[in-house]
Amino acid sequence: MQPVQRLTVIGVGLIGGSFALKLKQLGLVNEVVGCGRNQANLARAIELGVIDKAETDPTLAVAGAELVVLAVPLGSIAPIYKQIHSFLNHDAIVTDMGSAKASVIAEIAGLLGECPANFVPGHPIAGRELSGVEAADSDLYQQHRVILTPLSHTNTAAITRVEQLWQAVGARVSVMTANYHDEVFAATSHLPHMLAFALVDMLNDHPELGNVFQYTAGGFRDFTRIASSDAAMWRDIAVQNHSAILKWLDAYQAELNKLAQLLKAQNAAELQQLFTAAKKARDAHIVNRAS
Amino acid sequence: MQPVQRLTVIGVGLIGGSFALKLKQLGLVNEVVGCGRNQANLARAIELGVIDKAETDPTLAVAGAELVVLAVPLGSIAPIYKQIHSFLNHDAIVTDMGSAKASVIAEIAGLLGECPANFVPGHPIAGRELSGVEAADSDLYQQHRVILTPLSHTNTAAITRVEQLWQAVGARVSVMTANYHDEVFAATSHLPHMLAFALVDMLNDHPELGNVFQYTAGGFRDFTRIASSDAAMWRDIAVQNHSAILKWLDAYQAELNKLAQLLKAQNAAELQQLFTAAKKARDAHIVNRAS
Repeated sequence: MQPVQRLTVIGVGLIGGSFALKLKQLGLVNEVVGCGRNQANLARAIELGVIDKAETDPTLAVAGAELVVLAVPLGSIAPIYKQIHSFLNHDAIVTDMGSAKASVIAEIAGLLGECPANFVPGHPIAGRELSGVEAADSDLYQQHRVILTPLSHTNTAAITRVEQLWQAVGARVSVMTANYHDEVFAATSHLPHMLAFALVDMLNDHPELGNVFQYTAGGFRDFTRIASSDAAMWRDIAVQNHSAILKWLDAYQAELNKLAQLLKAQNAAELQQLFTAAKKARDAHIVNRAS
Repeated sequence: MQPVQRLTVIGVGLIGGSFALKLKQLGLVNEVVGCGRNQANLARAIELGVIDKAETDPTLAVAGAELVVLAVPLGSIAPIYKQIHSFLNHDAIVTDMGSAKASVIAEIAGLLGECPANFVPGHPIAGRELSGVEAADSDLYQQHRVILTPLSHTNTAAITRVEQLWQAVGARVSVMTANYHDEVFAATSHLPHMLAFALVDMLNDHPELGNVFQYTAGGFRDFTRIASSDAAMWRDIAVQNHSAILKWLDAYQAELNKLAQLLKAQNAAELQQLFTAAKKARDAHIVNRAS
């Protein structure tokens, strides 16, 4: 594969930094320009070998770039795209790393008139509790999924280029529509985050019980781990993907109503059936899957 | 501390077996009689040194026992107590290891006319994905909580004896009322289990999306880990503690309604506030606690 002549990463943290670092290790990029508002963070990124050059102005950072990666918070992707758009090389490819896709595409189309053919919307399914460029890890994407959600008019060569670079850093790439992506991730990621935040909030709001957290064990710790996620990031996801999340939240509330009926009726047989089906599905699809 | 002359463990699995094993290692029990229906399991328990003698008839197993531990499924505790009651030594202490307390106490009182003064209701907050005597581990209770929920007429010496034995095997003992116990564990353990089972069931019921489990990552795996718990055990807990679980399920549904309103309104500020409060509470009480 031809190395990327110049890669510009806007937002040099865990997600963008790990991508750049691995490409550099593989010799698949000749020069990485890192762009962000925090000069100290950029200096650290140079020290760590994640980027070669630092730039705080996105319109300068993208000059001459073959590939631009928008690894910024979800709410900033479209505004930054608008800002850099007229400074991009004619054939520059742009991709993002946001957790919701239809809203990003719609917002970019709204700001630019149409969604550029060289924009390949993407979402790497990877993350850690740690964030920032210090946490950048060239193995972050190893065996992780990356979803690409191109539009019908997206440039095929651009899709292939982005896909191959993701594969090179170890990811398994899936291509799907933005709407399907948003639906699936609303159900399997965004909703669980909402549920975990809501449970911790509820328990925190009942001082008459005392500190109930002291009686929790490993099950609770795991169940609520995602409630320790970054609040601003999840605010953006909740707002941007609110309609798909609401659809699933609604379906989930119907499921809880069914459960409440079974509890009220002390229907042991159907409760056991429900728990068994869940255990079976999880054991089959999560516990025993290949990766 | 005086060793227990004869300890009878009814239900020789992970929970009862680990308790007996540690007491034996500490020299705090002279003889352990194990009781269960499965002869092969009892033979294995003898091989593993968890018990000294095996007996399949509970009325024989409790003969001469100073302490009887009912480590059987929640729904079997009271029926077995009724069965052994007239075969117990006059001053034998009985304790159980069930995850719900008020229902067990009420059921025993119903079957025996009153709850015996030498019965010390208990609940060790420990468990593993593995079960059975093969999984017995003398360190299982190390630094784990054990809750005792004696009644006002429970024999003080019996409470102290059970408390000291739990402390000897490494547990931190808390004493509270059965109702408070059931309320706290409905909120922090039983409800989360219901929520995890319900989420996996919901996703499993939507074949039009295809297998969405393939797109899940570590967050989902942790969030749903408790949905791989034993279905029959959770059926018993759901039925026995249904009223406390329903109370919290109701409160949780109110929390989800509030969340749905904020999503509908795309109220970024209040969503962020809700997520921040949850993250703060979890980080303070779960992530950074001493043990």
